[in-house]
Amino acid sequence: MTEVVLGIDIGGTNTKFGFVDREGNLLCDYSISTAVHKTIDSYLQSLTNNIEKALNEINQDINFIGIGIGAPNGNYYRGTIEHAPNLNWKGVVNFVKKLKEHYSLPMAITNDANAAAIGEMIFGGAKSMKNFIVITLGTGLGSGFVIDGKIVYGHDGFAGELGHVTVKANGRFCGCGQRGCLETYVSATGIKRTIYKLLADHNGQSRLSGVSFNDLTAEMITDAARDGDPIALEAFEYTGNILGMELADTIILTSPEAIFLLGGLAKAEECIFEPTHRHMENSLMPIFKNKVKLLPSGLHEKNAAILGSAALIWHEIDKNPI
Amino acid sequence: MTEVVLGIDIGGTNTKFGFVDREGNLLCDYSISTAVHKTIDSYLQSLTNNIEKALNEINQDINFIGIGIGAPNGNYYRGTIEHAPNLNWKGVVNFVKKLKEHYSLPMAITNDANAAAIGEMIFGGAKSMKNFIVITLGTGLGSGFVIDGKIVYGHDGFAGELGHVTVKANGRFCGCGQRGCLETYVSATGIKRTIYKLLADHNGQSRLSGVSFNDLTAEMITDAARDGDPIALEAFEYTGNILGMELADTIILTSPEAIFLLGGLAKAEECIFEPTHRHMENSLMPIFKNKVKLLPSGLHEKNAAILGSAALIWHEIDKNPI
Repeated sequence: MTEVVLGIDIGGTNTKFGFVDREGNLLCDYSISTAVHKTIDSYLQSLTNNIEKALNEINQDINFIGIGIGAPNGNYYRGTIEHAPNLNWKGVVNFVKKLKEHYSLPMAITNDANAAAIGEMIFGGAKSMKNFIVITLGTGLGSGFVIDGKIVYGHDGFAGELGHVTVKANGRFCGCGQRGCLETYVSATGIKRTIYKLLADHNGQSRLSGVSFNDLTAEMITDAARDGDPIALEAFEYTGNILGMELADTIILTSPEAIFLLGGLAKAEECIFEPTHRHMENSLMPIFKNKVKLLPSGLHEKNAAILGSAALIWHEIDKNPI
Repeated sequence: MTEVVLGIDIGGTNTKFGFVDREGNLLCDYSISTAVHKTIDSYLQSLTNNIEKALNEINQDINFIGIGIGAPNGNYYRGTIEHAPNLNWKGVVNFVKKLKEHYSLPMAITNDANAAAIGEMIFGGAKSMKNFIVITLGTGLGSGFVIDGKIVYGHDGFAGELGHVTVKANGRFCGCGQRGCLETYVSATGIKRTIYKLLADHNGQSRLSGVSFNDLTAEMITDAARDGDPIALEAFEYTGNILGMELADTIILTSPEAIFLLGGLAKAEECIFEPTHRHMENSLMPIFKNKVKLLPSGLHEKNAAILGSAALIWHEIDKNPI
């Protein structure tokens, strides 16, 4: 009988989930809509119905022993989702408590970047590491810090918000209410804003000048850069400069062995890794130079979020064997 | 028989040491010159001679069980002092190994800011805390991060260099070889530089305009600010702004319960605490506002460095009872 856990990745639009064994094999994966549910109870009804359906469809002998959840503003200490801007359920949702009404199993929740970091540690590229950072470059910028083999949750469980470090006083407006936050420059959305800033500065002069703000994607910008489009190349240089300098500051605080870049913008590969690494090394004080690796995820992008959430609960089960 | 440890605080000019019991009582304290010794062997001869003298002078029954050392660029993992700019001994000094030739006792070394953080945790204002930061505002700016009850040493033992985070691109020249480091603005030396910048901007207009750069001290600036000197007040506002914004960034990464400000510039009390706290709160994203305490040290300034070094080894002994 194979012991498995359920990994659930809650996004603003969709929720993905799947069963994962101790070696990181994904037995199956499913996706349901998050956005369609206006209340948490309606969402949980749909989620649990689909979990039951999935359990029935698995045609092998399993022992279902735990649930890990990655969610925006997921709080590990309290088992809650708190004031998540991109979810319909406002305020503080006692997610773990509510899900325990359906499954009396060990459960843990955290934010998606922390789940990604645990995923790298348990199943991915950080298996042998005790000190590293994972940065997710999606719609926003998330980060998970692992220090001495443990995720940093901090005093109230919300540590690791690198996306909201201020990189420019009175800079771009951020959804958090502040200005100049890192994620307004460095994320799939941030590089779009940079392209539009550069199109304004240079009065067009790029094949991207035919694309509306709403239609523009990080993938289009990457394709343009690979074809030598000067505005797209300058946008990656600008993004890599800001990210590289911020990573240098983060390195001297936490002295990691490696930093992993994940998510949509990380798919740009050398377009983003090369300028980021160059500016990071240029900004580092001598005792830290040429020591810290900048790496892509060691997990397959497609299932990384489910594997991360599953790794979270495997990690708990390892700490407190049943 | 009282169990005691030896706490040694190595500074560029002087070395202070003393014997400390489990409750943080300092049985005696001594000071010898560091700067006069051109070689590490000559220094160690003087240090161990004076330790022996101190042992003979203690007229109570003690059991000497360990040595803790705080030193610039002290590396906890390797027991070394590495490339310390303000010490005469260049390169990598195997300090713990050399001192073990004299005393076969448990020993640990770290930098002075980490020692200060452990001092707060064991004997000072952070006794009940698991997540906090200590910032020392002296000639430079040092920092010690405690996360989940443990000092953050990172992958190579040099984590926590908040003083060398970049706060202004192409800003003030720093001894580390970079430009715009936090400590060039926020430290006893940093505020002197700010006074001189403001005297230049305002063409004098302060009682401090009669003091040379070499003679100016943080204490004089504090006295001037308390007497309402506009340049001194503006210097504290400027310093508090830069420090407050940087603390906000540090809070969202590590989510501490409190931040302690120690050292020469912290003696300015409200002159530095008030603007720093105000700018810190203004820069925080909503979920972190009004949560993090900004506190002075809970240790008497005079002996804090020795107590910190002593606490380092008490902490080790607690982890691995003899």
